[in-house]
Amino acid sequence: MNIGIVGLGLIGGSIGLKLQKLNHTVYGCVNNVSNEKIAINRNLADVISCDYRILKNCELIILALPIKELMNPSIELINSIPSNAVVTDVGSIKDPIIKKWEKLHPGFIGSHPMAGNENKGAKAGEESLFENKVWIITPTPTTKKRSIEKLKELILSMNCKIYETFPEEHDKAVSFISHLPIFLSSALIETANTKDNQSLLNLSQQISSTGFYDTSRVGGGNPDLGVDLAKNNQINILLAINIFKDKLNELEDIILKKDWKLLKKKLEESRQLRKKFCE
Amino acid sequence: MNIGIVGLGLIGGSIGLKLQKLNHTVYGCVNNVSNEKIAINRNLADVISCDYRILKNCELIILALPIKELMNPSIELINSIPSNAVVTDVGSIKDPIIKKWEKLHPGFIGSHPMAGNENKGAKAGEESLFENKVWIITPTPTTKKRSIEKLKELILSMNCKIYETFPEEHDKAVSFISHLPIFLSSALIETANTKDNQSLLNLSQQISSTGFYDTSRVGGGNPDLGVDLAKNNQINILLAINIFKDKLNELEDIILKKDWKLLKKKLEESRQLRKKFCE
Repeated sequence: MNIGIVGLGLIGGSIGLKLQKLNHTVYGCVNNVSNEKIAINRNLADVISCDYRILKNCELIILALPIKELMNPSIELINSIPSNAVVTDVGSIKDPIIKKWEKLHPGFIGSHPMAGNENKGAKAGEESLFENKVWIITPTPTTKKRSIEKLKELILSMNCKIYETFPEEHDKAVSFISHLPIFLSSALIETANTKDNQSLLNLSQQISSTGFYDTSRVGGGNPDLGVDLAKNNQINILLAINIFKDKLNELEDIILKKDWKLLKKKLEESRQLRKKFCE
Repeated sequence: MNIGIVGLGLIGGSIGLKLQKLNHTVYGCVNNVSNEKIAINRNLADVISCDYRILKNCELIILALPIKELMNPSIELINSIPSNAVVTDVGSIKDPIIKKWEKLHPGFIGSHPMAGNENKGAKAGEESLFENKVWIITPTPTTKKRSIEKLKELILSMNCKIYETFPEEHDKAVSFISHLPIFLSSALIETANTKDNQSLLNLSQQISSTGFYDTSRVGGGNPDLGVDLAKNNQINILLAINIFKDKLNELEDIILKKDWKLLKKKLEESRQLRKKFCE
């Protein structure tokens, strides 16, 4: 197949490397000359260019762009996508992106591969990133059968597992397991920042170790990503924050009442529950 | 020196291995025969026994016990510690332990080495665990000069950095950077456990990845530890929870008002602040 990838960052670049190994011809679009050079050096695609017109013969196009750009695609990009192509994205929210793109292209189907690491940019892609990972697809009643079939075939050929769900359910699930942690983590960092007590702050900074590192990690991530998620998944995130506050109030109340037996039961429950998320 | 270590788990065992390398004679106490066998096989100390009476000639004794046992020491242990020894503990809270032990032994000085990993028990100790780590000491106005000096000397010889502070300040700092994360993390797990919507829960469990793993890790830890911390650092933890709730409410309000510029500023601030805790 001739496959187009728009954006050759961590996700797009990794897909490009893998698809070339599977003997597809990959056309990769980048956003500037410096990324073009890196992408060419790293062979992220067979044809690499800043010009979207290289997409003109592609049967399948993967939009591996940040949420912001998916929500505000340039007219040049839209006009360069062949009308008979199957088009998907890899964005970490689905409903708003699908609502946008179903109007822009008849072959669109939303998807979200659950893979990633801390790296980004054209230097980041790696062929094995998707090996054995879950790739969510979120067709709607208007999605074409052909789009679903072509995308499923591609995902399976990449050694990924397919999980099919509704866009709304996807966005709820990620609000709990991916977006809420960002805001908790940020609030934790702000809490530890006891700036009106400098000696306490110095001590906290000196002695913080793995527990704090891990719990605060996603709060120290890319601010633009946090904003894009909040903007496009606002209602679900607010709902998740409210459920979280109830759960925290419950623990607070138990600690206040010194009900150590119940606290132990609660923490035992968390430990058991967590295993099901981390298998 | 003849040095006694009470408890040869991760912390005690690691200290035992290191101190033998520094040519001290180490007397290690364990709580049962099965741990005794493991500890002997692993050479965690020169002399290993379930009988506290092996401590009788020790000049310095390190109590490497769980908080619960530090707060409720057996009469046999207390009676076996020579009255002229320097005694320290390695517990992760300080004020209640110090209040307890200053009454039990004149040579007591509280301390807390900031090292650890996920492993526990007699199998866990490793010689290099303390290399370059911070070891907090928390003398009080009644601590003997000799205790401070002996302990400092030992810590430096183990290649650790000394940080001296007040017990109360230590307990405040750990409430922010170590205890609060446990309860946030537990509440996050409970939030994601949408048990009245099984298909959403299945999806969340399928797609949760590193962001959720890291943020929830300490909430999936040992429930007894969580209870011991809450019991012995209750006021500081409740205070930390309240400050955290204010910080989270602030973020919630910003998201509710769609003030994306301010949200970006906040997340940028978190990112910068976190670096100072994770250097």
